Amino acid sequence: MAGPSPYQYLDSQEQYAAILDKYDTFLFDCDGVIWSGDDLIPGAKSVLAKLRKRGKQVVFVTNNASKSRMAYLKKFEKLTIQAELCEVFSSSYAAAVYISKVLDLPKDRKVYVIGMEGIEEELKAVGLDYCGGTDPADKHFLPSMDFSLLNSERSLDHSVGAVLCGFDMHINYLKLAKAFKYITRDGADGPVRANETGGGCHFLLTNDDSTFPARGGPWPGSGALSAPLLFASGRAPIIIGKPNKPMLDCIEAVTHFDKSRAIFVGDRLNTDIQFGINGGIDTMLVLTGISKRSEIDASDAKTIPTYCVDSLGSFDVLQ
Amino acid sequence: MAGPSPYQYLDSQEQYAAILDKYDTFLFDCDGVIWSGDDLIPGAKSVLAKLRKRGKQVVFVTNNASKSRMAYLKKFEKLTIQAELCEVFSSSYAAAVYISKVLDLPKDRKVYVIGMEGIEEELKAVGLDYCGGTDPADKHFLPSMDFSLLNSERSLDHSVGAVLCGFDMHINYLKLAKAFKYITRDGADGPVRANETGGGCHFLLTNDDSTFPARGGPWPGSGALSAPLLFASGRAPIIIGKPNKPMLDCIEAVTHFDKSRAIFVGDRLNTDIQFGINGGIDTMLVLTGISKRSEIDASDAKTIPTYCVDSLGSFDVLQ
Repeated sequence: MAGPSPYQYLDSQEQYAAILDKYDTFLFDCDGVIWSGDDLIPGAKSVLAKLRKRGKQVVFVTNNASKSRMAYLKKFEKLTIQAELCEVFSSSYAAAVYISKVLDLPKDRKVYVIGMEGIEEELKAVGLDYCGGTDPADKHFLPSMDFSLLNSERSLDHSVGAVLCGFDMHINYLKLAKAFKYITRDGADGPVRANETGGGCHFLLTNDDSTFPARGGPWPGSGALSAPLLFASGRAPIIIGKPNKPMLDCIEAVTHFDKSRAIFVGDRLNTDIQFGINGGIDTMLVLTGISKRSEIDASDAKTIPTYCVDSLGSFDVLQ
Repeated sequence: MAGPSPYQYLDSQEQYAAILDKYDTFLFDCDGVIWSGDDLIPGAKSVLAKLRKRGKQVVFVTNNASKSRMAYLKKFEKLTIQAELCEVFSSSYAAAVYISKVLDLPKDRKVYVIGMEGIEEELKAVGLDYCGGTDPADKHFLPSMDFSLLNSERSLDHSVGAVLCGFDMHINYLKLAKAFKYITRDGADGPVRANETGGGCHFLLTNDDSTFPARGGPWPGSGALSAPLLFASGRAPIIIGKPNKPMLDCIEAVTHFDKSRAIFVGDRLNTDIQFGINGGIDTMLVLTGISKRSEIDASDAKTIPTYCVDSLGSFDVLQ
């Protein structure tokens, strides 16, 4: 006979009310929880407003590194949901904070970026200098089997102290080859030797999602685009985004919430719920997105939330 | 007390002569064995000529898929070494033979190529139709976060029955996204469902070398460039090149040598020597390239050759 379910399934007004009593800080994944693509999840907007009315702290957490937080706020605006810049944490912002505060990259060091505007804007916002990224000089196909450009004196910037890789629709061999050199070069090639595992500068990924959701997708995601660097160098990068701990460390450093009274709400077991577990906070799975209840009821289920509820909108029955 | 060395180190004329008596077919890796970059290994050319004079079968095996065999022959010509087209096996040629003969791809199916001229020429040579590759339409940067081109009716070719990925200096998101769709699409998206592991068409790599040797290198190699497809799809491709068995199967199918009287000569333990071991033939490590003798003398050595010799040129003392 199976034991009692290891998570609590919420389906009564009393249970919903108990959750609101128990937690002060509600951290949300957005897609699949608050909205689905361009449509609001029914009741979600009203529930968020009620949380604010009760004085709850609200935090939005996304692995999407292609947009800056400013650009991400526009999505909230478009769906007429209240959200402040200081409440939004993207993996690109968290990466910028991590490089600046945790790695404490010296001010004369640059970040080499494989990624788009969203990453560049967040690096700029925390005062970090960068190269690569959307620079037209790196959006370039090398001539076939011609490595001369890569070998020229000017191809590598000796002040690079970190490589940050995210989603980049302009990924190409030149960018990969440069990033590979930065993360593998030894002291002889430049003054930067930033890590203890030997060779190269710091190496970070905004997130390692294998695929990216967009129309007609899934399409290859950030984790896929950084795979060449991991495979060629054999180095393990610092991965910022959910389900990894650096993202929560970053949120905690900025918002100072009480972990014992915080809960993460998400629709994906392997990213959202695992993120809460890795960070040591309670979790709630909503069934309006990717993961199904059958996955947490399975006898071999590995990632189990604290609670499961049909929808964030279920809480709308509360006043 | 350590036991006897598990390999035989050759350093006398008698031992060299015994090798020539024992084997009829000599398979060679080239770079690090016959030449090093643009320079001949001393004595190697003379030894090859002596093998031919004694009626030995000579085969050259390379993972380099960027060149066709015809282009590869020019390297031999330049170094004034005798070599015939039928003696040269590249991973691109072996891949073409494998798709045609082993997978028996129907004639109305195309191969989608991530790779360069060398792969296209070999596919053409065995009568296979292909798309992608060096087609200028796929050498293209998509506009940022714009997936419309990928979603257009014309973006995917429904006759694609295999994806072949090799070294491609013009790798980009459009190519990766197309290949990803071909190897993951289900029956609903197209008529091709070529494998038993579920979904998508055949998926092959010419080789999975993590890095590519070129001036200023190493640079990211074929294995690195195909890593996004493996990571995003979760599919395990058929890998043709050394140390994998398909390459030897292909050589055997074409040259019909006697395995019990064949030996593979190479400078890399993890590719060359492992290739011979995987294929069930004897092996000889030469110390003129990558791997060192200390690696096979180590107590935790995993890949041990049948023989070890300082250089292919050592055999030049024989008449």
